[in-house]
Amino acid sequence: MLENIDVILCRPKFPENIGSVARACLNMGCGQIVLVAPLNWDLDKALPLATHHAGHLLKSVRIHQTLAEALAPYSFSYGTTARTGGWRQAIQTPEEAAPRIVEQRNAGGRIAIVFGPEDKGLTNGETDLCNQLLTIPTTDNLTSLNLSQAVMVMLYECFKKSLTKPFKVAGAPKDRYINNEEREVLFNQLRETLIEIDFLNKDNPEYFMLPLKRFFNRINPRLNEYNLLMGLCRQMRRIVAVAKDRKA
Amino acid sequence: MLENIDVILCRPKFPENIGSVARACLNMGCGQIVLVAPLNWDLDKALPLATHHAGHLLKSVRIHQTLAEALAPYSFSYGTTARTGGWRQAIQTPEEAAPRIVEQRNAGGRIAIVFGPEDKGLTNGETDLCNQLLTIPTTDNLTSLNLSQAVMVMLYECFKKSLTKPFKVAGAPKDRYINNEEREVLFNQLRETLIEIDFLNKDNPEYFMLPLKRFFNRINPRLNEYNLLMGLCRQMRRIVAVAKDRKA
Repeated sequence: MLENIDVILCRPKFPENIGSVARACLNMGCGQIVLVAPLNWDLDKALPLATHHAGHLLKSVRIHQTLAEALAPYSFSYGTTARTGGWRQAIQTPEEAAPRIVEQRNAGGRIAIVFGPEDKGLTNGETDLCNQLLTIPTTDNLTSLNLSQAVMVMLYECFKKSLTKPFKVAGAPKDRYINNEEREVLFNQLRETLIEIDFLNKDNPEYFMLPLKRFFNRINPRLNEYNLLMGLCRQMRRIVAVAKDRKA
Repeated sequence: MLENIDVILCRPKFPENIGSVARACLNMGCGQIVLVAPLNWDLDKALPLATHHAGHLLKSVRIHQTLAEALAPYSFSYGTTARTGGWRQAIQTPEEAAPRIVEQRNAGGRIAIVFGPEDKGLTNGETDLCNQLLTIPTTDNLTSLNLSQAVMVMLYECFKKSLTKPFKVAGAPKDRYINNEEREVLFNQLRETLIEIDFLNKDNPEYFMLPLKRFFNRINPRLNEYNLLMGLCRQMRRIVAVAKDRKA
């Protein structure tokens, strides 16, 4: 969770975007949303975009008239900007900055990440108030991100870095890879089965086994997959035996 | 650029979201947008959200009626899902999957990243059609992302991994850190200056220099900062000399 990492939106134009920002803030965790001189702030237009889960973040926004005023309580502030070149300050990517942001927060700091309005970004006067500038890597085709998407990427990087344990998703535990002994058993079983169904030339089966062996080496089977393939081979050989019985 | 990594949107409800997706696709690079049974596809509603830069991605969307049909030309498909637990398939994070996605693409594969509708996500039938499931790490408070933000995070991770060189932002080249010799010169200059302006007790200046030394050790000054501080000290000593002359 990202308590004490707040999102400051400077002169945002569309309440709907602020709603989308609130949702991103709840997805990734964020302390508070602060608005600086919002153009048409309208809670009712913002709420639907936030989903009902993140409505509380919109109802508790702090509003200031200048960025300087909004930044007063923060120990460190990061301004975001689309890459334009010619900057005098060093600029970092979110991935570079996130460990430091999280470290500053963990050391008791209160951090602000500052975003400009949708169309123009932060003014030079505003970026000068920030302690560090950040830019999100993009292609050269379009360097300017949608406001809420930019907030999402910044908080996503901070959230990943704030996890003390790697994020693990629910899922069946994975079987171990098979070992060399099992691999040999599998190859033998496959060879015998493929000979019995007349798929392999019994005069030179090893030659035709080569691409199959390469295939299995590349996919590196797990134990459950080994059991599946062994069972499949056994069943094929059983059917072949029945068929041969009938013929006889 | 992410040519041959396409975004497939299953049953999207709001054309505006598709517009936002197009903008994210142009920011991060993406081959094509594919719609599966879109609910109310309306190019005119989608275009404003894409900005005029990404309009061409909307005008060239491919539309299919089923996901199976849409997936036909792809060598590998990744389905995205909000974490819900109880999955039988192993699920990866975008960060885990991105190197493999980029590797498959670089090896000539054509990759699809599949997203469900805004409210419900992909059905089990649809996730079964995907070769791998992905989920974006979130807090437990709200695990479901806005559609275009989810697309942004996925493509952002792929874009970062696709860069052959690290993404470097424009900015003045950084000066090197000062070395120990310079550090000593700086400390001496500071000590003498602070004694001259009666800031340091001249009977025991080292004792009072300690917190200052700690401060400078922590900030690890660069050469331009060293030059700035040395110049500042020289100027202070010059002023002090003038003041003393006047007094005398």
